[in-house]
Amino acid sequence: MFRIAVIGCGYWGPKLVRNFGEQDDVKVEYVSDLHKERLNFIKKRHPVVKTTRNYKDILRDNKVDALAIATPVSTHFQLAQEALKHKKHVLLEKPMTCTQDQAQRLIDLAKKHKRVLMVGHTFLYTGAVRKIKEIMDSGQLGKLYYFDSVRINLGMFQHDTNVIWDLAAHDFSIMDYLLGVKPVNISASGACHARNEIENIAYVTVNFTNNVIAHFYVNWLAPVKIRQILIGGSDKMILFDDMLPSEKVKVYDKGVWFKEGSKKDDYKIQVQYRKGDMYVPQIDITEGLYVECKHFIDCIKNDKKPLSDAAQGLRVVRLLEAAEKSIKNNAKYVKL
Amino acid sequence: MFRIAVIGCGYWGPKLVRNFGEQDDVKVEYVSDLHKERLNFIKKRHPVVKTTRNYKDILRDNKVDALAIATPVSTHFQLAQEALKHKKHVLLEKPMTCTQDQAQRLIDLAKKHKRVLMVGHTFLYTGAVRKIKEIMDSGQLGKLYYFDSVRINLGMFQHDTNVIWDLAAHDFSIMDYLLGVKPVNISASGACHARNEIENIAYVTVNFTNNVIAHFYVNWLAPVKIRQILIGGSDKMILFDDMLPSEKVKVYDKGVWFKEGSKKDDYKIQVQYRKGDMYVPQIDITEGLYVECKHFIDCIKNDKKPLSDAAQGLRVVRLLEAAEKSIKNNAKYVKL
Amino acid sequence: MFRIAVIGCGYWGPKLVRNFGEQDDVKVEYVSDLHKERLNFIKKRHPVVKTTRNYKDILRDNKVDALAIATPVSTHFQLAQEALKHKKHVLLEKPMTCTQDQAQRLIDLAKKHKRVLMVGHTFLYTGAVRKIKEIMDSGQLGKLYYFDSVRINLGMFQHDTNVIWDLAAHDFSIMDYLLGVKPVNISASGACHARNEIENIAYVTVNFTNNVIAHFYVNWLAPVKIRQILIGGSDKMILFDDMLPSEKVKVYDKGVWFKEGSKKDDYKIQVQYRKGDMYVPQIDITEGLYVECKHFIDCIKNDKKPLSDAAQGLRVVRLLEAAEKSIKNNAKYVKL
Amino acid sequence: MFRIAVIGCGYWGPKLVRNFGEQDDVKVEYVSDLHKERLNFIKKRHPVVKTTRNYKDILRDNKVDALAIATPVSTHFQLAQEALKHKKHVLLEKPMTCTQDQAQRLIDLAKKHKRVLMVGHTFLYTGAVRKIKEIMDSGQLGKLYYFDSVRINLGMFQHDTNVIWDLAAHDFSIMDYLLGVKPVNISASGACHARNEIENIAYVTVNFTNNVIAHFYVNWLAPVKIRQILIGGSDKMILFDDMLPSEKVKVYDKGVWFKEGSKKDDYKIQVQYRKGDMYVPQIDITEGLYVECKHFIDCIKNDKKPLSDAAQGLRVVRLLEAAEKSIKNNAKYVKL
Repeated sequence: MFRIAVIGCGYWGPKLVRNFGEQDDVKVEYVSDLHKERLNFIKKRHPVVKTTRNYKDILRDNKVDALAIATPVSTHFQLAQEALKHKKHVLLEKPMTCTQDQAQRLIDLAKKHKRVLMVGHTFLYTGAVRKIKEIMDSGQLGKLYYFDSVRINLGMFQHDTNVIWDLAAHDFSIMDYLLGVKPVNISASGACHARNEIENIAYVTVNFTNNVIAHFYVNWLAPVKIRQILIGGSDKMILFDDMLPSEKVKVYDKGVWFKEGSKKDDYKIQVQYRKGDMYVPQIDITEGLYVECKHFIDCIKNDKKPLSDAAQGLRVVRLLEAAEKSIKNNAKYVKL
Repeated sequence: MFRIAVIGCGYWGPKLVRNFGEQDDVKVEYVSDLHKERLNFIKKRHPVVKTTRNYKDILRDNKVDALAIATPVSTHFQLAQEALKHKKHVLLEKPMTCTQDQAQRLIDLAKKHKRVLMVGHTFLYTGAVRKIKEIMDSGQLGKLYYFDSVRINLGMFQHDTNVIWDLAAHDFSIMDYLLGVKPVNISASGACHARNEIENIAYVTVNFTNNVIAHFYVNWLAPVKIRQILIGGSDKMILFDDMLPSEKVKVYDKGVWFKEGSKKDDYKIQVQYRKGDMYVPQIDITEGLYVECKHFIDCIKNDKKPLSDAAQGLRVVRLLEAAEKSIKNNAKYVKL
Repeated sequence: MFRIAVIGCGYWGPKLVRNFGEQDDVKVEYVSDLHKERLNFIKKRHPVVKTTRNYKDILRDNKVDALAIATPVSTHFQLAQEALKHKKHVLLEKPMTCTQDQAQRLIDLAKKHKRVLMVGHTFLYTGAVRKIKEIMDSGQLGKLYYFDSVRINLGMFQHDTNVIWDLAAHDFSIMDYLLGVKPVNISASGACHARNEIENIAYVTVNFTNNVIAHFYVNWLAPVKIRQILIGGSDKMILFDDMLPSEKVKVYDKGVWFKEGSKKDDYKIQVQYRKGDMYVPQIDITEGLYVECKHFIDCIKNDKKPLSDAAQGLRVVRLLEAAEKSIKNNAKYVKL
Repeated sequence: MFRIAVIGCGYWGPKLVRNFGEQDDVKVEYVSDLHKERLNFIKKRHPVVKTTRNYKDILRDNKVDALAIATPVSTHFQLAQEALKHKKHVLLEKPMTCTQDQAQRLIDLAKKHKRVLMVGHTFLYTGAVRKIKEIMDSGQLGKLYYFDSVRINLGMFQHDTNVIWDLAAHDFSIMDYLLGVKPVNISASGACHARNEIENIAYVTVNFTNNVIAHFYVNWLAPVKIRQILIGGSDKMILFDDMLPSEKVKVYDKGVWFKEGSKKDDYKIQVQYRKGDMYVPQIDITEGLYVECKHFIDCIKNDKKPLSDAAQGLRVVRLLEAAEKSIKNNAKYVKL
């Protein structure tokens, strides 16, 4: 029996409790939160889980193998650091840390203590994103042209981070996973409609070599919930609409063919459109978080490197830091 | 009987011929194009219209009152200039000209010769945009927060202008009409997947005073056709989806209320969400171009200032020029 | 503390366990099922719930106040009868029983023992259906014209009942609740593609007085999941699309106005269309089953008549029996 | 040059004029209508077409090769009869005639005079229906199970026919074309909300051998416009949504597999679901009526049998007559 504790029991913590609880040979031993009513909430649903307001009780319990940390991002570094020092494996929610430096120090610490340090980039574990990865890895898309992402809805305003840290963190992790190449620079714009310090709407552009461009639109103040990613290639294009109850991933056999070496003045006739069929692959509908929890356990048991390892966590934090820097500098390009 | 000629008979010209032809007391006297097959195409559908490959024939005909010019943008200035000098009223397709200077010179010329000079910003004449204008003018939206526009599809690659000049011109005109305020600066990114000179995908941010932000995503290489505008206000928000066969405009009674003067550390509890009903106003489904043609005639007959007058045409060209400048300068802000 | 037991732990039982478990002052004391693996499934998620393969253990336990029965319909009558005789309150899943006679006998028994007997017509407790009821009760729709329902998907083939008993039971209960008037007769057609005994696709028409017509399309063999109800009135019409993640209920201010007393030969000009705005009311998104469980407890505690009482259960069974009779008689009308 | 006349210039006639006008080597010589304003409407758009209120002028003109008749159905028989007697080829709008007898007499007359008699079942000529036909003919669907059609909207109330004759005529022709098998019997229900004579909402069931079932829902009083056909087979299923601007035809690789010879009590485990990919074939977007007009000319020129020949017209009328008989007899089955 594998024993786990969940630290932080706001919106995400209870989902971790439920999904770890449904794994074979896993027991959620503790839940910790500063607020008593959140602990009561868990107690009502999971009467056998121990609850505590002091997470240090958990660190001291040698029977606990691993911690899942779902607290505000500003506390991630310190909690993960303590956990690793107490020889616990750690599943750390995204964004991993507030700075690249913190992320690097956690990576080093995990290495030193030989513990698994995984970041909760949960979308990587959904059937939809795994299927898109499979399609892209097969080379079907041809040459990659662009990656365009929209993640907007009404709420939840965060009080310690802006909308990029809150929402774009998801899409940066998806891009990092699917593209697997190093970005060159980043530019971001945004606006604050509550206070001047915290953007609630933002647009981020990431440039790669070979004219590959990525763009992210995030908004806490939209009347509708949209979660769409469009990936364009020379041979095929993918539309991923995560709000659809089914048929989330569409693969379009559409494209444009440019005749090389043609003269500028006869440009027009050198473009050939191709419009073929579209298909919707069947995807696994298992909850992404369930797959993520299972993967975390598997990595510990079998000493594997997680798909969303700490190195990816760091790369996402690097993008977040750079986007924030650009937004404060009038959309100026920031090198990555 | 009012006599009109249409110069340029590619994609848009035949639509002008049809829509002018359906007006009362209007006769399409001539159609001109450099390509004989386009003239034959018109001849087949409209056997009584005179066709010519030499537009100068039309300028010399004193019975012709007005010209609608639907040629490539690079020819707009010269054609409109000649037409105005020949005392013709002019409906000039968008974008109005290649430069602000050209636009200003046409404005001056029209003023001198006392002719109507109107720009074909056709979306301003659709039932949807007119309804949105009516709603915004009523003050229902409260304080304006953002204007977000997406216009993407597969094709039509232009050989003389990039995707911003081709597609964003529409959305700039809609924004200019609906917001009616002067933008402060603009930033643009993009990528070229055919040749390095002409962007086929681009993202444009326009900043206004009071933290109002506008954004435009245009793409010639998308597998799906999306035309969406999202307008956010403090009290209400509008979603305009132009691809829907009906129910194109949705007005959401949703918003966020920020308590002023609250301390930073209790920020979170100072945000109040409001989620009310949504409604879909009934809109006039008359073809926008029909309304536009009617309005052009009306402006000539009754000496009115067009809704999409040359001054608006110039403002749109200014945005286009500035966006292009920014895209060539790594998304650097360009003052407007 | 109120103690409840759930009998039957297939697809629906675990949802009852979870939703009763989340009520205040309620404890799920027992879960019973014939299959050991289903009990293990519950044990894993709810370690403190007692499980048994023999439901009679529960009947004998005087501390148990109420039973929720979620077993195959063929067992409903006997289980509910025993439970009522043991003075338990009963929440019985739909369809209530196999015959009207059984339903009547349970009604009598509940009355005799003064116990609450409620039927699990769960859609009545969703925010969407409650909002539609509120709109219809306000009289906004004018004169009622029709009620049209579609409920189709792939699976779940039942081995003891046809698709009408399985799926139309839901829609019959919604119609009964919303219309509140007595139907006159019923006609049904269907087809069996597996074996000849059990229809997997069926169409049912129910006629009312005043030319009101209702229709139900149910199908276990559709590639897409559709759950739509269209309600037409003389003044307004409602479209309820239960598969949408939001905006499920749309109220259309559309209609037709017929001039009375007009002569037959000038019929055409006597029809006037009215096309006004559409609106989407905000609806409560609490899970219907949670509201249902709460209502059941409330009815017991405060001696109230349930919204979905046994009399409604009987009316739904009457429609099901009559539909089956018609389907076996070539769609012949069966009086109700 | 092939000369054609269009009789009847209401909603459909002008579309015939336009589509015949766009054919090569075809000239629309005449348009006839009883209402002068309709002739003026045509004159404005097509100044060189001759107009007349007396169709007999056209019959007498030997230069006219063919007539397209788009008048109310009650006049079809007489007009087509006269036209055939005057040796004109005839394209007759749907429904072909008011009775099967009339249809048969026109068939005989066309045969006698060796003229082409084609019925305007225009949906057969759309890219979507042709693609579905191609898929079905390939055998991909396996054993056919059902054909389910919905065609509803607000308006246009007809003064001489009910909603079945108006709307279901389309779907009967599509079913006849796609299935190509003889129906066994028909049952119909409906309701009249204007006057008692003319149904404005109706449901029609058509039964075939081998448990194949077809169903049609038509409604003039729906707030939304829905045009959907669902075709279920043992191996694949098709959803045709004609209101979508693109992606109208979806082919689902989904199904159920029934193990033959299994005992009744272990039925449940004998059903196997199969859920595979879905694909959307690229379809020709040429206007169906253009293809239809072209086909009519082709049949005349090359002495071919039309796809929608008079025999199909008669089969559709047979279904319409039988549906009306059933609706007047309380949904009783009518043999076909």
